[in-house]
Amino acid sequence: MTQATDKDRVLIFDTTLRDGEQSPGATMTHAEKLEIAGLLDEMGVDIIEAGFPIASEGDFKAVSEIAQNSKNSVICGLARAQFPDIDRCWEAVKNAAQPRIHTFIGTSPLHRAIPNLTQDQMAERIHETVTHARNLCDNVQWSPMDATRTEWDYLARVVEIAIKAGATTINIPDTVGYTAPAESADLIKRLIAEVPGAEDVVFATHCHNDLGMATANSLAAVAGGARQIECTINGLGERAGNTALEEVVMALRVRHDIMPWTTGVDTTKIMNISRRVATVSGFPVQFNKAIVGKNAFAHESGIHQDGMLKNVETFEIMRPADVGLTESNLVMGKHSGRAALRDKLKNLGFEVGDNQLKDVFVRFKELADRKKEVYDEDLIALMRVGEDPENDRLKITDLKVVCGMHGPQTAELTMIIDGAPQSTTQFGDGPVDATFNAVKALFPHSARLQLYQVHAVTEGTDAQATVSVRMEEDGRVVTGQSADTDTVVASAKAYVNALNRLIVRREKSAPGEDKREISYKDVS
Amino acid sequence: MTQATDKDRVLIFDTTLRDGEQSPGATMTHAEKLEIAGLLDEMGVDIIEAGFPIASEGDFKAVSEIAQNSKNSVICGLARAQFPDIDRCWEAVKNAAQPRIHTFIGTSPLHRAIPNLTQDQMAERIHETVTHARNLCDNVQWSPMDATRTEWDYLARVVEIAIKAGATTINIPDTVGYTAPAESADLIKRLIAEVPGAEDVVFATHCHNDLGMATANSLAAVAGGARQIECTINGLGERAGNTALEEVVMALRVRHDIMPWTTGVDTTKIMNISRRVATVSGFPVQFNKAIVGKNAFAHESGIHQDGMLKNVETFEIMRPADVGLTESNLVMGKHSGRAALRDKLKNLGFEVGDNQLKDVFVRFKELADRKKEVYDEDLIALMRVGEDPENDRLKITDLKVVCGMHGPQTAELTMIIDGAPQSTTQFGDGPVDATFNAVKALFPHSARLQLYQVHAVTEGTDAQATVSVRMEEDGRVVTGQSADTDTVVASAKAYVNALNRLIVRREKSAPGEDKREISYKDVS
Repeated sequence: MTQATDKDRVLIFDTTLRDGEQSPGATMTHAEKLEIAGLLDEMGVDIIEAGFPIASEGDFKAVSEIAQNSKNSVICGLARAQFPDIDRCWEAVKNAAQPRIHTFIGTSPLHRAIPNLTQDQMAERIHETVTHARNLCDNVQWSPMDATRTEWDYLARVVEIAIKAGATTINIPDTVGYTAPAESADLIKRLIAEVPGAEDVVFATHCHNDLGMATANSLAAVAGGARQIECTINGLGERAGNTALEEVVMALRVRHDIMPWTTGVDTTKIMNISRRVATVSGFPVQFNKAIVGKNAFAHESGIHQDGMLKNVETFEIMRPADVGLTESNLVMGKHSGRAALRDKLKNLGFEVGDNQLKDVFVRFKELADRKKEVYDEDLIALMRVGEDPENDRLKITDLKVVCGMHGPQTAELTMIIDGAPQSTTQFGDGPVDATFNAVKALFPHSARLQLYQVHAVTEGTDAQATVSVRMEEDGRVVTGQSADTDTVVASAKAYVNALNRLIVRREKSAPGEDKREISYKDVS
Repeated sequence: MTQATDKDRVLIFDTTLRDGEQSPGATMTHAEKLEIAGLLDEMGVDIIEAGFPIASEGDFKAVSEIAQNSKNSVICGLARAQFPDIDRCWEAVKNAAQPRIHTFIGTSPLHRAIPNLTQDQMAERIHETVTHARNLCDNVQWSPMDATRTEWDYLARVVEIAIKAGATTINIPDTVGYTAPAESADLIKRLIAEVPGAEDVVFATHCHNDLGMATANSLAAVAGGARQIECTINGLGERAGNTALEEVVMALRVRHDIMPWTTGVDTTKIMNISRRVATVSGFPVQFNKAIVGKNAFAHESGIHQDGMLKNVETFEIMRPADVGLTESNLVMGKHSGRAALRDKLKNLGFEVGDNQLKDVFVRFKELADRKKEVYDEDLIALMRVGEDPENDRLKITDLKVVCGMHGPQTAELTMIIDGAPQSTTQFGDGPVDATFNAVKALFPHSARLQLYQVHAVTEGTDAQATVSVRMEEDGRVVTGQSADTDTVVASAKAYVNALNRLIVRREKSAPGEDKREISYKDVS
């Protein structure tokens, strides 16, 4: 980890797995959290906030396992200003090569009113809890939640207390996305200038995008002296989300002339993790999203490009390759061979062994038979299909759906359940409803469907559709995915994929252990 | 229109229909453009850039008709630095109550290289063209495209020339989304301070969001002295899009304490136009988009809301009603009556006459039979169904689709074409492909499918799906929409809706007249 003394280095603190994942509807499974943490570590994120350990057994286990697997990143857990929170957090992060405890309390008048503490009582609580955290861990971050709406005198006072109690990083959150760039810069500058001991800690900025200014506010804070930016992939997060990692990192790179600070992020990993977070969170990225949107690069607009543009820089300040977009979207067809497929997959970031290649090649050929041209996006969808042929207890072998204007719609389904084929015919409102009813008739369960999404992978009516399904049963949350040129078949497979994952979760965890009984907003 | 002398008033210049609509894939139909222009005028946008009249017959007609229909907004057309462009633009806007000609040329080194003009030659061209525009129209806006990458001395020189030639508004475009707030403010401040005559014109800012800072850059430009912000609804636009109207307008309102400027926009109209632009452009808004995303307001997150949050301001700086989100998402059911439906529709912004109410009520009952609870979003989808029972030449009366794992998928379709029922059975790769093939078999056409999108309106497997279809034939572009609990039925109806619109277009315009032969990037 870079030291605070390296004045041009900005630390990237990613909170996709904590502040991002708390966004309503964005819940990730245990396996997804581990995967995302691995990608963040690999791309050079300095600090990963992996979760809020006291919130649930599931959060605790995820943070613990991410800590154990960590390579280069500092692993951080969140804790309210309470000893049990801090102890639980330390239990979860202590096995990381570089652990951090992040403790916080809401310091603005509105937030002080919730636990009903006077200014003095809260100051005392801050002193005690930061001291306790620092006794457990050398690396302690403290945040005055809603700092941008906290009275200046009180903010300066509590920041000083936290520093004296041993905090090594002071994070200044703009919790409600309220600030603007000049104000954001001034606040950090003034804290550094006026708070005793400020020169010995790293100041961090944590912005939300409610007014569309999170990126500019974060970079302004850096100009004011902050050296840690808190952010999430795709700007995932509650309401309008957090600062987007890809935007601050690329802005620092593209405008190094006026913002002479560097990060340790390998920007060529951006597109891959962006796509992955969009998929597992169920939060699609809009076409015109900066850096990672489908249209973000002029060359991606494809067909309608003006032929006369000789110099790409005329309308482009970044190269697609800078963020890991492969230069060409070379099309594969039914005559492409196994070696070509392996090369193509390697370019897309998938290293496959011989056995996996064999399996993928079969599915690629099936797809190429149905679809004239197979694009990069089709192959990515193919690789992301969640099936695990060896371990899946449920497998669809036949599906026929009749739908149309005169309902009820009918689904005839055959599944192999634990090796034995079973069939049923069920009705529903629409083809997807009928199909899901059929699955449920053969494999009864009490899981509730939380999310159902269909995305067309490429253009045209013969395009592959990818379907994501998220289900919840007794606090266990699972996501299933599939892709097919037939939307109904893709839906059925995604649903069964989610059920297979649910069966695994049932065996591994007691009912309810993933359920968050505690929110970070519950401050007592 | 407010005068430049009103120092606290910021003019909102909306370019959704020009810079937004030029975004690859966002093409709108003539009727959609007129509708959006009407909504912009009604919400208090000061200037509407309605199109680029020389680009095509379609653009010319849209700008002309928007000009004729305009009420309070200034109507502006775009023109390159060429006399024929400017003449054509004037022809289109001259019938507006308040017309404006907007002419521009790329002044940065990269852009000067395209027409291969020396600095002096370009300066002469600017003088001639702005003079010509001003001889036609009292209200002339001039833009040095890629201003933020133009050498300071040359920029100051050409701005002075444009002012002397009669430009009344000088727009400073950050064409590639390259600038940052402090730089953006400084550039405007310096131009106003140093260019002779600057005090007599309005300076405008036109930002792109490539680095995620368009909103902050636009507001910084205002702090630097700009009094016109160019923006689009939802930040629609090429690459990462333009400045989002809703973000700058709401930021000025929420942070009036540090940004003491006002706009004339009625913010309660924001959600309605945002949804409409998302639908007609085919560019969905991401859940965590500032102001207009589904999750932008904490209260919208619904179910998972923490019960303990007594004071909504704790995590919310705007009220949903400020942007026109109705406070409650009151559910209607199959027992709701006609009066309740009319009231509900009125709340959602739809004023319906008795005949329309009768028709909508029938469709509402059909939906309520299939779906237990009918949400606001369901009703909005219902109102947006594009059918015109009296004038549609094609109407689907029966559809049965068989799909599943053993293809080919089959669609049996009956349509009434010009009063006569016709039936066919066709195959395809997937249920949608088969259905579209059946429509094409009964009504042969050469239209190419440009866009096919499915959105679930609400949650659950029995949710209504809305389908958007965009087709192009001989340069005529049409969009069709429909909604149904059966995705396949919704797809078929949307496709036929688009064909009905295409038939109308065929009668009204010669082949190719909508085709843009000219891009604003073609500078000769």
